[in-house]
Amino acid sequence: MGWNKVAMVGAGLIRMGELFDQSYEQMAYGAFKAVVDSVDKGFDPSQVEAAIVATQRGTLWGQEGIGGNTVPSAIGIAGIPCTRVENACPSGSDAFRIGAMVVASGVHDVVLVIGVEKMRDKSTEEGLLSRAAAGHPVYNRGETAPVLFAPFATRHMHDFGTTREMLASVAVKNHHNGALDPYAHFQSEITMQQVLDSPPVCHPLHLLDCCPQTDGAAAVLLVSAERAKEFTDKPVWVAGFGVATDHPYMHEKSSYVGLPATTMAAERAYAMSGVSPDEIDMAEVHDCFTITEILDIEDLGFVEKGKGGIASIEGETAIGGRIPVNPSGGLLAKGHPIGATGVAQVTECFWQLRHEAGDRQIEVRNGNALQHNVGGRGSGVAVVNILTTNAS
Amino acid sequence: MGWNKVAMVGAGLIRMGELFDQSYEQMAYGAFKAVVDSVDKGFDPSQVEAAIVATQRGTLWGQEGIGGNTVPSAIGIAGIPCTRVENACPSGSDAFRIGAMVVASGVHDVVLVIGVEKMRDKSTEEGLLSRAAAGHPVYNRGETAPVLFAPFATRHMHDFGTTREMLASVAVKNHHNGALDPYAHFQSEITMQQVLDSPPVCHPLHLLDCCPQTDGAAAVLLVSAERAKEFTDKPVWVAGFGVATDHPYMHEKSSYVGLPATTMAAERAYAMSGVSPDEIDMAEVHDCFTITEILDIEDLGFVEKGKGGIASIEGETAIGGRIPVNPSGGLLAKGHPIGATGVAQVTECFWQLRHEAGDRQIEVRNGNALQHNVGGRGSGVAVVNILTTNAS
Repeated sequence: MGWNKVAMVGAGLIRMGELFDQSYEQMAYGAFKAVVDSVDKGFDPSQVEAAIVATQRGTLWGQEGIGGNTVPSAIGIAGIPCTRVENACPSGSDAFRIGAMVVASGVHDVVLVIGVEKMRDKSTEEGLLSRAAAGHPVYNRGETAPVLFAPFATRHMHDFGTTREMLASVAVKNHHNGALDPYAHFQSEITMQQVLDSPPVCHPLHLLDCCPQTDGAAAVLLVSAERAKEFTDKPVWVAGFGVATDHPYMHEKSSYVGLPATTMAAERAYAMSGVSPDEIDMAEVHDCFTITEILDIEDLGFVEKGKGGIASIEGETAIGGRIPVNPSGGLLAKGHPIGATGVAQVTECFWQLRHEAGDRQIEVRNGNALQHNVGGRGSGVAVVNILTTNAS
Repeated sequence: MGWNKVAMVGAGLIRMGELFDQSYEQMAYGAFKAVVDSVDKGFDPSQVEAAIVATQRGTLWGQEGIGGNTVPSAIGIAGIPCTRVENACPSGSDAFRIGAMVVASGVHDVVLVIGVEKMRDKSTEEGLLSRAAAGHPVYNRGETAPVLFAPFATRHMHDFGTTREMLASVAVKNHHNGALDPYAHFQSEITMQQVLDSPPVCHPLHLLDCCPQTDGAAAVLLVSAERAKEFTDKPVWVAGFGVATDHPYMHEKSSYVGLPATTMAAERAYAMSGVSPDEIDMAEVHDCFTITEILDIEDLGFVEKGKGGIASIEGETAIGGRIPVNPSGGLLAKGHPIGATGVAQVTECFWQLRHEAGDRQIEVRNGNALQHNVGGRGSGVAVVNILTTNAS
């Protein structure tokens, strides 16, 4: 039952938002301070043996980005090995998985995983997302993110009777949850009518069907099973994980009603952890658009293919529902600072499993949580991490 | 004695150069085909369980870059987990280390490490290196790579009597070696007078003291110790590795006659492997400039601090010398396609330890080789990998 070689013993993040007043270094330091302060039995920064940094932009690209070699100095622990991991939107969740394998390898016992991203310092035109595909002979055909996800929404509507109201219900739920999360970018409720009436971006996705561009940072501490007790009596174990790649071009997709990378990654994570979808108590999943969360909950096995829209509008994924999804507010309300997103999702899972999620606490029944990101060209990569409080 | 949990069972690269006629995907496929063909007992691409991709540029930045999620589809093995690792100039060597830890974690038994970089598709002004620091309030002060390394040369000259001829002897040696390497970017000898007379770039570094900008790709296969025999009877073991970070700003350096990141990384690699500097038979080190190789061989413990220039001009680091350094031609002649560089260096070590290096074969005495990169802002990160044919 479960891999359980590695324990999470701390997690923290900074308030997400438009952080024009903070440098990359300040954001990283804020997340690092939060994770150091979160360790039950105390933690000294000098105990970090190695670090993995998730950031999509990196130090290139005409901006004051951050990378593996600059983070340790910036947060006061220069000298340690530190490596940048990048994997499109799942950068943070893949950094978590790589960090877990570094611990499991026996080379380092105490590993910091930190995600940092600035999305707002440049104008949208000059910004990260608009340039991601620029210059490529095929990708460079107006394939912005809404354009890539909209066909999945129209096909899901066509095949399964999914409605704009069902899509909108995802945004309403996640903004409701965000209003309960002191770290969320947006902390106020929205109504279904506001979602439906918001300006169209790419049919059928309107503005409030889309996640915002958000700056943020988050960090977690991973330690070997043998040493977990030095740091906490309430460790959260890495039960398993899975990553899968898919073909990056839209014309290579076999259908537009699901994302194969998510399905494959989930199968691998369930097999490694020995946990099945119906044993998951809550999930933080990739809701870059409302349709994405609907695809996710189907592809992850929480609801039957085609039933994601109905499940959402009927409240099955609400905090009190059958399978609470994105209690943190998700990408739609908490925000999507790319490298930090997966690390922040894992942080939410850590808090939920430890009953530390305040007003948005879900009911923990089986002690298992799931974290998921999907992204890259043509949603070409997905990462699923499964966490548990059940010692193996 | 040695970590030796992970074996290299294959290695390959494509001819380095100005590869305007090849896409990223074609370069990656070329390196993958080379590594598949290199496995003694045969290898089917479907046996790859996971991959680590080293590339500094990535998919962002206005170009048709490559990333973790696009490589598997491009080389015909879509589906597998694939993660991009970036760590400035040591990206390739750090990807090798991360790949080794993935194997040692027990999660995957057969891991592909592949490095790919295009340096020449854009003009220098628009290119990778010139934009690396652009926009930053401090870095953005003309701190191109020659400007960052030149003060180390002038200080080394001042403190130790190092001469321009000693610097030039490194270039003469590495171009001599490159002329013996069918994969090198430059395959012709140069004379000391040519180096001395080449145009100045930043005193005392002249054009032929600098490595070129080169496109390239390289790949290696790492497998668990238990499974090595399935692939070869001549495995090369990962004996140990070390990474260290330093402060990224030049004004924070304690001296200009050595790179602390290299010294720390080497200490860690020697400790992990149980191998001492005098037991290393050959080394591939980071000679982005002639002065860098002189600093390297001192910081790695091959010669006393201050004696690197004399050792170089007296032939101690030549193929027939006491400690052959950069028999492949090094960055100066073989080239420096950033993400591919470290992987290509490891490939040379693999060939040398297996007596497969043709005309540039060194004498293998102890069965140990060392690979090194240093880079990033203010040479803020170094990676050292130590390989051995001695089973533990």
